[in-house]
Amino acid sequence: MTHYQQVLRIATTGKSLSRFTNKVQSVVTESGVKTGLCTLFLRHTSASLLIQENADPDVLRDLENFFSKLVPEWENYIHSTEGPDDMPAHIRTALTSTSEQIPIANGRLMLGTWQGIYLWEHRQHGHTREVVVHILGD
Amino acid sequence: MTHYQQVLRIATTGKSLSRFTNKVQSVVTESGVKTGLCTLFLRHTSASLLIQENADPDVLRDLENFFSKLVPEWENYIHSTEGPDDMPAHIRTALTSTSEQIPIANGRLMLGTWQGIYLWEHRQHGHTREVVVHILGD
Amino acid sequence: MTHYQQVLRIATTGKSLSRFTNKVQSVVTESGVKTGLCTLFLRHTSASLLIQENADPDVLRDLENFFSKLVPEWENYIHSTEGPDDMPAHIRTALTSTSEQIPIANGRLMLGTWQGIYLWEHRQHGHTREVVVHILGD
Repeated sequence: MTHYQQVLRIATTGKSLSRFTNKVQSVVTESGVKTGLCTLFLRHTSASLLIQENADPDVLRDLENFFSKLVPEWENYIHSTEGPDDMPAHIRTALTSTSEQIPIANGRLMLGTWQGIYLWEHRQHGHTREVVVHILGD
Repeated sequence: MTHYQQVLRIATTGKSLSRFTNKVQSVVTESGVKTGLCTLFLRHTSASLLIQENADPDVLRDLENFFSKLVPEWENYIHSTEGPDDMPAHIRTALTSTSEQIPIANGRLMLGTWQGIYLWEHRQHGHTREVVVHILGD
Repeated sequence: MTHYQQVLRIATTGKSLSRFTNKVQSVVTESGVKTGLCTLFLRHTSASLLIQENADPDVLRDLENFFSKLVPEWENYIHSTEGPDDMPAHIRTALTSTSEQIPIANGRLMLGTWQGIYLWEHRQHGHTREVVVHILGD
Protein backbone atom coordinates (compact mmCIF):
# COMPACT_ATOMS: atom_id res chain seq x y z
CA MET A 1 0.00 0.00 0.00
CA THR A 2 1.31 3.47 -0.87
CA HIS A 3 0.73 7.13 -0.10
CA TYR A 4 0.74 9.93 -2.61
CA GLN A 5 0.42 13.59 -1.59
CA GLN A 6 0.01 16.68 -3.71
CA VAL A 7 -1.01 20.26 -2.89
CA LEU A 8 -3.38 21.85 -5.43
CA ARG A 9 -3.43 25.65 -5.67
CA ILE A 10 -6.81 26.97 -6.80
CA ALA A 11 -7.41 30.61 -7.70
CA THR A 12 -10.85 31.96 -6.76
CA THR A 13 -12.62 35.12 -7.90
CA GLY A 14 -14.45 36.07 -4.70
CA LYS A 15 -17.64 34.54 -3.24
CA SER A 16 -18.41 31.60 -5.53
CA LEU A 17 -18.02 27.86 -6.05
CA SER A 18 -15.20 26.53 -8.29
CA ARG A 19 -15.44 22.93 -9.47
CA PHE A 20 -12.11 21.06 -9.48
CA THR A 21 -13.19 17.41 -9.78
CA ASN A 22 -10.93 16.84 -12.81
CA LYS A 23 -7.86 18.10 -10.97
CA VAL A 24 -8.49 15.66 -8.13
CA GLN A 25 -9.07 12.77 -10.57
CA SER A 26 -5.77 13.68 -12.29
CA VAL A 27 -3.92 13.29 -8.97
CA VAL A 28 -5.62 9.92 -8.44
CA THR A 29 -4.53 8.82 -11.93
CA GLU A 30 -0.95 10.07 -11.39
CA SER A 31 -0.76 8.16 -8.09
CA GLY A 32 -1.41 4.88 -9.91
CA VAL A 33 -3.72 3.80 -7.06
CA LYS A 34 -6.55 1.49 -8.22
CA THR A 35 -8.31 0.76 -4.91
CA GLY A 36 -8.07 3.19 -2.04
CA LEU A 37 -9.08 6.41 -0.42
CA CYS A 38 -8.71 10.03 -1.52
CA THR A 39 -8.63 12.61 1.29
CA LEU A 40 -9.03 16.32 0.57
CA PHE A 41 -7.98 18.89 3.16
CA LEU A 42 -8.41 22.65 2.74
CA ARG A 43 -5.74 24.74 4.52
CA HIS A 44 -7.97 27.80 5.18
CA THR A 45 -10.65 29.01 7.60
CA SER A 46 -12.60 31.30 5.25
CA ALA A 47 -13.39 28.86 2.42
CA SER A 48 -14.86 25.33 2.28
CA LEU A 49 -14.84 22.06 0.41
CA LEU A 50 -18.22 21.00 -0.94
CA ILE A 51 -19.45 17.96 -2.82
CA GLN A 52 -22.52 19.10 -4.76
CA GLU A 53 -24.57 18.80 -7.92
CA ASN A 54 -22.43 19.17 -11.05
CA ALA A 55 -25.16 19.85 -13.61
CA ASP A 56 -27.24 23.01 -13.17
CA PRO A 57 -25.20 26.14 -12.24
CA ASP A 58 -28.38 27.62 -10.73
CA VAL A 59 -27.88 25.27 -7.78
CA LEU A 60 -24.61 27.08 -7.03
CA ARG A 61 -26.29 30.49 -7.20
CA ASP A 62 -29.06 29.37 -4.84
CA LEU A 63 -26.46 27.95 -2.43
CA GLU A 64 -24.55 31.24 -2.43
CA ASN A 65 -27.77 33.24 -1.97
CA PHE A 66 -28.93 31.06 0.93
CA PHE A 67 -25.62 31.30 2.80
CA SER A 68 -25.38 35.07 2.19
CA LYS A 69 -28.77 35.49 3.84
CA LEU A 70 -28.12 32.97 6.64
CA VAL A 71 -24.83 34.64 7.60
CA PRO A 72 -25.31 38.35 6.84
CA GLU A 73 -22.38 40.75 6.55
CA TRP A 74 -24.17 43.60 8.31
CA GLU A 75 -24.32 41.89 11.72
CA ASN A 76 -22.44 43.38 14.66
CA TYR A 77 -19.55 40.94 14.79
CA ILE A 78 -16.85 41.51 17.41
CA HIS A 79 -14.14 40.35 14.98
CA SER A 80 -14.45 42.99 12.24
CA THR A 81 -10.97 44.44 11.61
CA GLU A 82 -10.46 42.36 8.46
CA GLY A 83 -13.64 43.63 6.80
CA PRO A 84 -17.38 42.84 6.95
CA ASP A 85 -16.97 39.61 4.94
CA ASP A 86 -14.32 38.06 7.23
CA MET A 87 -16.36 36.84 10.22
CA PRO A 88 -19.22 35.62 7.97
CA ALA A 89 -16.57 33.64 6.06
CA HIS A 90 -15.43 31.93 9.30
CA ILE A 91 -19.05 31.09 10.20
CA ARG A 92 -19.78 29.70 6.72
CA THR A 93 -16.67 27.55 7.07
CA ALA A 94 -17.93 26.21 10.43
CA LEU A 95 -21.28 25.30 8.80
CA THR A 96 -19.66 23.40 5.92
CA SER A 97 -16.54 21.17 5.48
CA THR A 98 -12.77 21.46 5.68
CA SER A 99 -12.00 17.80 4.88
CA GLU A 100 -13.67 15.21 2.63
CA GLN A 101 -12.96 11.56 1.83
CA ILE A 102 -13.82 9.81 -1.41
CA PRO A 103 -13.17 6.09 -1.95
CA ILE A 104 -11.37 5.01 -5.16
CA ALA A 105 -12.23 1.91 -7.23
CA ASN A 106 -10.66 0.91 -10.57
CA GLY A 107 -8.54 4.05 -10.43
CA ARG A 108 -11.61 6.36 -10.36
CA LEU A 109 -13.16 8.49 -7.60
CA MET A 110 -16.40 6.76 -6.56
CA LEU A 111 -18.49 9.93 -6.93
CA GLY A 112 -22.18 9.61 -7.77
CA THR A 113 -23.34 10.60 -11.26
CA TRP A 114 -24.36 14.10 -10.14
CA GLN A 115 -21.54 14.83 -7.70
CA GLY A 116 -18.79 17.35 -8.32
CA ILE A 117 -16.04 18.58 -5.97
CA TYR A 118 -16.05 22.32 -5.29
CA LEU A 119 -13.94 24.89 -3.52
CA TRP A 120 -16.25 27.47 -1.99
CA GLU A 121 -14.69 30.91 -1.58
CA HIS A 122 -16.39 32.88 1.22
CA ARG A 123 -14.41 36.16 0.95
CA GLN A 124 -15.42 39.05 -1.33
CA HIS A 125 -12.06 39.06 -3.13
CA GLY A 126 -10.23 36.29 -4.95
CA HIS A 127 -7.55 34.23 -3.20
CA THR A 128 -5.26 31.35 -4.06
CA ARG A 129 -6.38 28.43 -1.91
CA GLU A 130 -4.41 25.29 -1.06
CA VAL A 131 -6.05 21.86 -1.02
CA VAL A 132 -3.98 18.87 0.11
CA VAL A 133 -4.84 15.73 -1.88
CA HIS A 134 -3.76 12.60 -0.02
CA ILE A 135 -4.13 9.27 -1.86
CA LEU A 136 -3.77 5.99 0.00
CA GLY A 137 -4.13 2.58 -1.60
CA ASP A 138 -2.67 0.12 -4.02
CA MET B 1 -2.88 -3.87 5.81
CA THR B 2 -5.94 -4.51 3.65
CA HIS B 3 -8.80 -2.65 1.98
CA TYR B 4 -12.38 -3.84 1.88
CA GLN B 5 -15.08 -1.97 -0.06
CA GLN B 6 -18.80 -2.53 -0.17
CA VAL B 7 -21.70 -0.41 -1.47
CA LEU B 8 -24.78 -0.43 0.78
CA ARG B 9 -28.14 0.37 -0.83
CA ILE B 10 -30.57 1.95 1.62
CA ALA B 11 -34.23 2.56 0.81
CA THR B 12 -35.71 5.72 2.32
CA THR B 13 -39.34 6.77 2.71
CA GLY B 14 -39.02 10.52 2.13
CA LYS B 15 -37.77 13.21 4.54
CA SER B 16 -36.53 11.28 7.56
CA LEU B 17 -33.52 9.72 9.27
CA SER B 18 -32.81 5.98 8.83
CA ARG B 19 -30.36 4.36 11.24
CA PHE B 20 -28.01 1.82 9.61
CA THR B 21 -25.29 1.37 12.26
CA ASN B 22 -25.74 -2.43 12.26
CA LYS B 23 -25.23 -2.68 8.50
CA VAL B 24 -21.95 -0.77 8.75
CA GLN B 25 -20.79 -2.93 11.69
CA SER B 26 -21.62 -6.04 9.61
CA VAL B 27 -19.29 -4.83 6.83
CA VAL B 28 -16.56 -4.20 9.41
CA THR B 29 -17.03 -7.75 10.76
CA GLU B 30 -17.03 -9.25 7.24
CA SER B 31 -13.79 -7.42 6.43
CA GLY B 32 -12.00 -9.16 9.30
CA VAL B 33 -10.26 -5.87 10.19
CA LYS B 34 -9.50 -5.54 13.91
CA THR B 35 -7.70 -2.16 14.00
CA GLY B 36 -8.37 0.41 11.33
CA LEU B 37 -10.57 3.05 9.83
CA CYS B 38 -14.08 2.88 8.39
CA THR B 39 -14.92 5.55 5.81
CA LEU B 40 -18.51 6.18 4.73
CA PHE B 41 -19.23 8.09 1.53
CA LEU B 42 -22.73 8.97 0.29
CA ARG B 43 -23.06 9.15 -3.50
CA HIS B 44 -25.85 11.77 -3.55
CA THR B 45 -26.35 15.54 -3.27
CA SER B 46 -29.85 15.58 -1.76
CA ALA B 47 -29.28 13.37 1.31
CA SER B 48 -26.70 13.32 4.12
CA LEU B 49 -24.80 11.10 6.51
CA LEU B 50 -25.31 11.93 10.16
CA ILE B 51 -23.89 10.56 13.39
CA GLN B 52 -26.47 11.31 16.06
CA GLU B 53 -28.19 10.19 19.25
CA ASN B 54 -29.49 6.64 18.96
CA ALA B 55 -31.91 6.58 21.91
CA ASP B 56 -34.87 9.00 21.78
CA PRO B 57 -36.63 9.19 18.36
CA ASP B 58 -37.89 12.66 19.35
CA VAL B 59 -34.37 13.96 18.65
CA LEU B 60 -34.81 12.91 15.02
CA ARG B 61 -38.18 14.68 14.78
CA ASP B 62 -36.74 17.88 16.24
CA LEU B 63 -33.80 17.70 13.81
CA GLU B 64 -36.16 17.32 10.86
CA ASN B 65 -38.37 20.17 12.11
CA PHE B 66 -35.41 22.48 12.62
CA PHE B 67 -33.98 21.87 9.15
CA SER B 68 -37.41 22.20 7.50
CA LYS B 69 -37.76 25.65 9.05
CA LEU B 70 -34.14 26.69 8.42
CA VAL B 71 -34.36 25.77 4.72
CA PRO B 72 -37.99 26.43 3.72
CA GLU B 73 -39.48 24.96 0.56
CA TRP B 74 -41.48 28.09 -0.28
CA GLU B 75 -38.45 30.31 -0.98
CA ASN B 76 -37.91 31.68 -4.49
CA TYR B 77 -35.12 29.37 -5.57
CA ILE B 78 -33.74 29.76 -9.09
CA HIS B 79 -33.28 25.99 -9.41
CA SER B 80 -36.89 24.78 -9.12
CA THR B 81 -37.62 22.52 -12.09
CA GLU B 82 -37.24 19.35 -10.02
CA GLY B 83 -39.84 20.41 -7.44
CA PRO B 84 -39.95 22.66 -4.35
CA ASP B 85 -38.06 20.13 -2.21
CA ASP B 86 -35.05 19.79 -4.54
CA MET B 87 -33.07 22.97 -3.88
CA PRO B 88 -33.74 22.80 -0.09
CA ALA B 89 -32.35 19.23 -0.26
CA HIS B 90 -29.12 20.50 -1.84
CA ILE B 91 -28.79 23.21 0.82
CA ARG B 92 -29.43 20.76 3.66
CA THR B 93 -26.72 18.53 2.17
CA ALA B 94 -24.27 21.48 2.15
CA LEU B 95 -25.05 22.13 5.84
CA THR B 96 -24.43 18.51 6.88
CA SER B 97 -22.02 15.70 5.78
CA THR B 98 -21.32 13.57 2.73
CA SER B 99 -18.41 11.59 4.24
CA GLU B 100 -17.65 10.32 7.74
CA GLN B 101 -14.76 8.39 9.29
CA ILE B 102 -15.01 6.09 12.27
CA PRO B 103 -11.94 4.37 13.77
CA ILE B 104 -12.15 0.61 14.44
CA ALA B 105 -10.68 -1.17 17.51
CA ASN B 106 -11.05 -4.87 18.38
CA GLY B 107 -13.17 -5.30 15.27
CA ARG B 108 -15.79 -2.77 16.46
CA LEU B 109 -16.67 0.77 15.32
CA MET B 110 -15.44 3.13 18.07
CA LEU B 111 -18.79 4.93 18.34
CA GLY B 112 -19.75 6.54 21.63
CA THR B 113 -22.50 4.93 23.70
CA TRP B 114 -25.18 7.25 22.33
CA GLN B 115 -24.00 7.48 18.71
CA GLY B 116 -25.84 5.93 15.78
CA ILE B 117 -25.13 6.25 12.05
CA TYR B 118 -28.00 7.70 9.99
CA LEU B 119 -28.87 8.32 6.38
CA TRP B 120 -30.85 11.54 6.19
CA GLU B 121 -33.23 11.73 3.23
CA HIS B 122 -33.96 15.35 2.25
CA ARG B 123 -36.42 14.72 -0.62
CA GLN B 124 -40.20 14.36 -0.15
CA HIS B 125 -40.29 10.95 -1.81
CA GLY B 126 -38.38 7.77 -1.00
CA HIS B 127 -35.19 6.89 -2.89
CA THR B 128 -32.63 4.10 -2.87
CA ARG B 129 -29.39 5.69 -1.70
CA GLU B 130 -25.87 4.31 -2.11
CA VAL B 131 -23.32 4.51 0.69
CA VAL B 132 -19.77 3.32 -0.01
CA VAL B 133 -18.22 1.61 3.03
CA HIS B 134 -14.44 1.54 2.79
CA ILE B 135 -12.56 -0.41 5.47
CA LEU B 136 -8.81 -0.06 5.85
CA GLY B 137 -6.73 -1.85 8.45
CA ASP B 138 -5.46 -5.16 9.67
CA MET C 1 2.55 1.24 6.98
CA THR C 2 1.35 1.38 10.60
CA HIS C 3 -1.65 2.41 12.69
CA TYR C 4 -1.51 4.26 15.97
CA GLN C 5 -4.62 4.96 18.04
CA GLN C 6 -5.04 7.07 21.15
CA VAL C 7 -8.12 8.44 22.94
CA LEU C 8 -7.74 12.03 24.19
CA ARG C 9 -9.93 13.13 27.09
CA ILE C 10 -10.68 16.84 27.01
CA ALA C 11 -12.42 18.68 29.85
CA THR C 12 -14.74 21.49 28.78
CA THR C 13 -16.28 24.31 30.83
CA GLY C 14 -19.68 24.61 29.13
CA LYS C 15 -20.54 26.28 25.80
CA SER C 16 -17.16 27.27 24.34
CA LEU C 17 -14.35 26.27 22.00
CA SER C 18 -11.22 24.57 23.42
CA ARG C 19 -8.14 24.43 21.19
CA PHE C 20 -6.20 21.15 21.38
CA THR C 21 -3.95 21.30 18.30
CA ASN C 22 -0.83 20.64 20.38
CA LYS C 23 -2.28 17.48 21.91
CA VAL C 24 -3.03 16.08 18.45
CA GLN C 25 0.46 17.00 17.18
CA SER C 26 1.93 15.21 20.24
CA VAL C 27 0.12 12.01 19.26
CA VAL C 28 1.43 12.37 15.69
CA THR C 29 4.97 12.78 17.04
CA GLU C 30 4.60 9.80 19.42
CA SER C 31 3.38 7.63 16.54
CA GLY C 32 6.62 8.21 14.63
CA VAL C 33 4.63 8.61 11.38
CA LYS C 34 6.30 10.97 8.89
CA THR C 35 3.88 10.77 5.94
CA GLY C 36 0.26 9.83 6.52
CA LEU C 37 -3.19 10.74 7.66
CA CYS C 38 -4.53 11.82 11.05
CA THR C 39 -8.22 11.09 11.66
CA LEU C 40 -10.08 12.68 14.56
CA PHE C 41 -13.38 11.22 15.74
CA LEU C 42 -15.52 12.69 18.53
CA ARG C 43 -17.53 10.14 20.50
CA HIS C 44 -20.43 12.48 21.39
CA THR C 45 -23.61 13.93 19.89
CA SER C 46 -23.72 17.25 21.77
CA ALA C 47 -20.27 18.63 20.93
CA SER C 48 -18.30 19.09 17.67
CA LEU C 49 -14.85 19.13 16.15
CA LEU C 50 -13.95 22.37 14.40
CA ILE C 51 -10.91 23.53 12.45
CA GLN C 52 -10.88 27.33 12.76
CA GLU C 53 -8.79 30.47 13.06
CA ASN C 54 -6.20 30.19 15.82
CA ALA C 55 -5.31 33.87 16.26
CA ASP C 56 -8.10 36.21 17.42
CA PRO C 57 -10.28 34.80 20.25
CA ASP C 58 -13.06 37.19 19.14
CA VAL C 59 -13.69 34.80 16.23
CA LEU C 60 -14.62 32.13 18.77
CA ARG C 61 -17.01 34.48 20.59
CA ASP C 62 -18.71 35.46 17.31
CA LEU C 63 -19.04 31.78 16.35
CA GLU C 64 -20.65 30.96 19.70
CA ASN C 65 -22.99 33.99 19.43
CA PHE C 66 -24.04 33.09 15.90
CA PHE C 67 -24.84 29.48 16.76
CA SER C 68 -26.68 30.47 19.95
CA LYS C 69 -28.96 32.69 17.87
CA LEU C 70 -29.33 30.23 14.99
CA VAL C 71 -30.34 27.38 17.34
CA PRO C 72 -32.19 29.05 20.21
CA GLU C 73 -32.80 27.30 23.52
CA TRP C 74 -36.30 28.71 23.94
CA GLU C 75 -37.83 26.83 21.00
CA ASN C 76 -40.54 24.23 21.61
CA TYR C 77 -38.44 21.12 21.11
CA ILE C 78 -40.15 17.75 21.57
CA HIS C 79 -36.99 16.29 23.14
CA SER C 80 -36.65 18.46 26.25
CA THR C 81 -36.28 16.15 29.27
CA GLU C 82 -32.51 16.67 29.48
CA GLY C 83 -32.79 20.47 29.69
CA PRO C 84 -33.26 23.38 27.27
CA ASP C 85 -29.65 23.17 26.01
CA ASP C 86 -29.79 19.47 25.03
CA MET C 87 -31.75 19.51 21.75
CA PRO C 88 -29.95 22.69 20.55
CA ALA C 89 -26.68 20.83 21.24
CA HIS C 90 -27.78 17.94 18.98
CA ILE C 91 -28.76 20.39 16.21
CA ARG C 92 -25.46 22.30 16.49
CA THR C 93 -23.67 18.94 16.20
CA ALA C 94 -25.63 18.13 13.01
CA LEU C 95 -24.61 21.51 11.53
CA THR C 96 -20.90 20.99 12.26
CA SER C 97 -18.49 18.00 12.28
CA THR C 98 -17.96 14.77 14.18
CA SER C 99 -14.89 13.56 12.21
CA GLU C 100 -11.99 15.41 10.57
CA GLN C 101 -8.94 14.26 8.57
CA ILE C 102 -5.63 16.07 8.41
CA PRO C 103 -2.76 14.84 6.20
CA ILE C 104 0.71 14.54 7.78
CA ALA C 105 3.99 15.46 6.05
CA ASN C 106 7.48 15.43 7.63
CA GLY C 107 5.90 14.32 10.89
CA ARG C 108 3.71 17.47 11.11
CA LEU C 109 -0.03 18.04 10.66
CA MET C 110 -0.45 19.90 7.36
CA LEU C 111 -2.63 22.63 8.90
CA GLY C 112 -2.65 26.08 7.31
CA THR C 113 -0.91 28.94 9.16
CA TRP C 114 -4.16 30.16 10.72
CA GLN C 115 -5.80 26.80 11.45
CA GLY C 116 -6.29 25.38 14.92
CA ILE C 117 -8.18 22.24 16.02
CA TYR C 118 -11.03 22.86 18.47
CA LEU C 119 -13.47 20.88 20.54
CA TRP C 120 -16.76 22.78 20.62
CA GLU C 121 -18.84 22.11 23.72
CA HIS C 122 -22.55 22.73 23.04
CA ARG C 123 -23.94 21.99 26.54
CA GLN C 124 -24.26 24.61 29.30
CA HIS C 125 -22.17 22.59 31.74
CA GLY C 126 -18.67 21.20 31.42
CA HIS C 127 -18.08 17.61 30.33
CA THR C 128 -15.12 15.33 29.70
CA ARG C 129 -15.18 14.58 25.98
CA GLU C 130 -13.40 11.73 24.20
CA VAL C 131 -11.66 12.26 20.85
CA VAL C 132 -10.17 9.24 19.08
CA VAL C 133 -6.93 10.12 17.28
CA HIS C 134 -6.11 7.56 14.59
CA ILE C 135 -2.76 7.90 12.80
CA LEU C 136 -2.03 5.93 9.66
CA GLY C 137 1.20 6.14 7.70
CA ASP C 138 4.88 5.39 7.69
